[in-house]
Amino acid sequence: MDGRWFEDFKVGDQIVSPGKTLTEAEIIDWAFHFDPQPFHMDKVAAEAHMYGGLIASGWMLGTYTFRLFMMANPWAPDASLGSPGLEELRWVRPVRPGDTIHVVVTISDTRPSRSKPDRGVVGFDWQVRDQNGETAMTMRSIQLLRCRPTPD
Amino acid sequence: MDGRWFEDFKVGDQIVSPGKTLTEAEIIDWAFHFDPQPFHMDKVAAEAHMYGGLIASGWMLGTYTFRLFMMANPWAPDASLGSPGLEELRWVRPVRPGDTIHVVVTISDTRPSRSKPDRGVVGFDWQVRDQNGETAMTMRSIQLLRCRPTPD
Repeated sequence: MDGRWFEDFKVGDQIVSPGKTLTEAEIIDWAFHFDPQPFHMDKVAAEAHMYGGLIASGWMLGTYTFRLFMMANPWAPDASLGSPGLEELRWVRPVRPGDTIHVVVTISDTRPSRSKPDRGVVGFDWQVRDQNGETAMTMRSIQLLRCRPTPD
Repeated sequence: MDGRWFEDFKVGDQIVSPGKTLTEAEIIDWAFHFDPQPFHMDKVAAEAHMYGGLIASGWMLGTYTFRLFMMANPWAPDASLGSPGLEELRWVRPVRPGDTIHVVVTISDTRPSRSKPDRGVVGFDWQVRDQNGETAMTMRSIQLLRCRPTPD
C-alpha cells in the first residue's frame, strides 16, 4: 500500500501519531524565536505567573501536532492538495516541559468534489493528548485530497 | 507608556506589524522540520504541482503571524494571560519565496470578565497581507488580558 488517497478515508477511522516529549530547552527556544511571552521562555517569571511554571507556546503545539500527524503517513505523498483552514482551535490544557504528547485524528466527514471528479474533501477532528490521556488541544480542519490515480 | 493593558484596547483600533520577507531557504527548512509535504520543500515536485512552485507551510504562516504581531508590542509584558483559542483560520492565498508579509489586527470586541475584576477579554480579527496588499491568511482569536495594576 503506497498510502491513502481520498477514497481510502472512512468516517470514524482514526489516525494515531507517535509520541513526542517536549523538553524545557525546546519550549524556551521556540518561545525566544516565535512567541516571546514570559510564561513561555522565562522560568522565574513563569513560576510567579498564573500557570505556575513554563508552558509550551500554542503555535508550537499546533506546529508539532501537524508534524506528528505527518509522521503517521496519513496519505500518499502526492495525494494532498492542501487545506483551506482550521475551525475552533482550543488550547485546553497547558503542556509543560517533560510532557509527552501524541495526536489522534478522527475522520468526521468525506465528500467528493462536485466540480472536480479527481478529488474530495475530508474532515478531521483533532485531539492532542498528553501522557495521562488528558486532552491538551483540539481543532477541526478540512483537507483536500486527490483520488487514487487510474493507470494510464 | 509601558504597554497596553485590558482597558487600553478599543473596538476598531488596529495593530500593524513590521514586514518580513520569506526566503526560499526558510520555507524549505521549516517544511523539512515541521510540514514535510512536497509543495513546501521540493522545488521540482512543487513546480509540477497545482501551486506551480514552492509555497510556505500554513503553520509557518500562523507562527510568523504571531511573531510579527508580538514585534508590534501589542501589550505590556505582564498583561497577557494567554488565549483560549482561534476561530476560522483561512489560508486564502499562497505565500511564495520572496513574498513580504505583514499583519494587521483589528480589535473586534472588548469585555470585562464577570467573575474576575482584574481582567478582560479582547477579540482580534487578523489579516496577513503580502507586499501587494493581498490577503494571504485570516483568523479570529480572543485574548485574556489583565487590567492595569493599581499602585499599592
